[in-house]
Amino acid sequence: MAKHAGGRPRERRVDTVIAAAVRAVIGEAGYAGLTVDAVAAMAGVSKAAIYRRYTTKQEMTFAVLLPDLDERTPGDTGSLTGDLRALTEQIAAQIVGPGPDNLTGLLADIRADPALRARFATTYLTVERGIIGTVLDRAIARGELASRPDPALVHALLLGPLIAWLVVLDEFPARATELAHLVGEIAGGALTARLLPVETWS
Amino acid sequence: MAKHAGGRPRERRVDTVIAAAVRAVIGEAGYAGLTVDAVAAMAGVSKAAIYRRYTTKQEMTFAVLLPDLDERTPGDTGSLTGDLRALTEQIAAQIVGPGPDNLTGLLADIRADPALRARFATTYLTVERGIIGTVLDRAIARGELASRPDPALVHALLLGPLIAWLVVLDEFPARATELAHLVGEIAGGALTARLLPVETWS
Repeated sequence: MAKHAGGRPRERRVDTVIAAAVRAVIGEAGYAGLTVDAVAAMAGVSKAAIYRRYTTKQEMTFAVLLPDLDERTPGDTGSLTGDLRALTEQIAAQIVGPGPDNLTGLLADIRADPALRARFATTYLTVERGIIGTVLDRAIARGELASRPDPALVHALLLGPLIAWLVVLDEFPARATELAHLVGEIAGGALTARLLPVETWS
Repeated sequence: MAKHAGGRPRERRVDTVIAAAVRAVIGEAGYAGLTVDAVAAMAGVSKAAIYRRYTTKQEMTFAVLLPDLDERTPGDTGSLTGDLRALTEQIAAQIVGPGPDNLTGLLADIRADPALRARFATTYLTVERGIIGTVLDRAIARGELASRPDPALVHALLLGPLIAWLVVLDEFPARATELAHLVGEIAGGALTARLLPVETWS
């Protein structure tokens, strides 16, 4: 995150210019071509101005790209399947946004830095899991679910195939809609009994 | 792949020494610490000996680690769920083997090199999808499935959550067994009708 978050207007303007430059450099040179030198040149600022804000290139990338993920609870569509479809489309858009190569590079950077990994978990994954919990609770309130499936399992079933299709299988994003249908059926349909209790499964 | 595949005994011995050194360097220094220098030092061979075999570090890594994946069709367990569980355990072991950081680094390297990506698809993903097709065909022959679910969708549902749990969610591998149950139920149970035809879904 920016060291100067909430700073003076001029500082905030420089933050915006740097963020735009990060996106532009990734767009032109890919994640592998993203360097502090390239961002400084694109933004027309000194490298020192960047390092005053971010300790490392990875910090900079993370701070710029993570807010782009725009994690929101979908509006109530009136059904579990509808809510899950909206959430799947949101996650799919987040994952497709940076492109497969950038996503893989970003994940590798996050994994390589325990501090970034912890921050990614709290600012993104925990929020996303909370949204899934909200969507499941709505379904219980509607009478669609007799019991609450494990949000962690639903999370992996939504996020996992999307990542696999994009990063490994090269088959994204045609299947996002079918995935939403499928997970909705899993959570809301005949398999709910199989989703609880988790403890007895392994 | 090794340029000298099937070469003289001495060449094959050097291949084995290099392969062992790649695994040892990764074990000690992680994927980020894997360099041709480090492998040459560990193996007690010259860098030239390595570059005679592999054009790049990524070629070397890929050639050593991919055969370790040991892609096999599981023995017939007598049920679709049993076959899928065996396959899930095999894929889980492959993914856990290198460790999350190494897996992420390897995937990033594969993505960054179109030739490696194509080779990964033909030597690993296509084989794995063929195994899934065989498992589904067995289930049809047993009368467990009235129709054949799309192997590509089953593939993503098996592989995706395993990758997400390990690389993104930090929750692997406790859930491999429940995943196998779940995908078995999806493929064989109440949702089969939902899996076909894929065309009408999106």
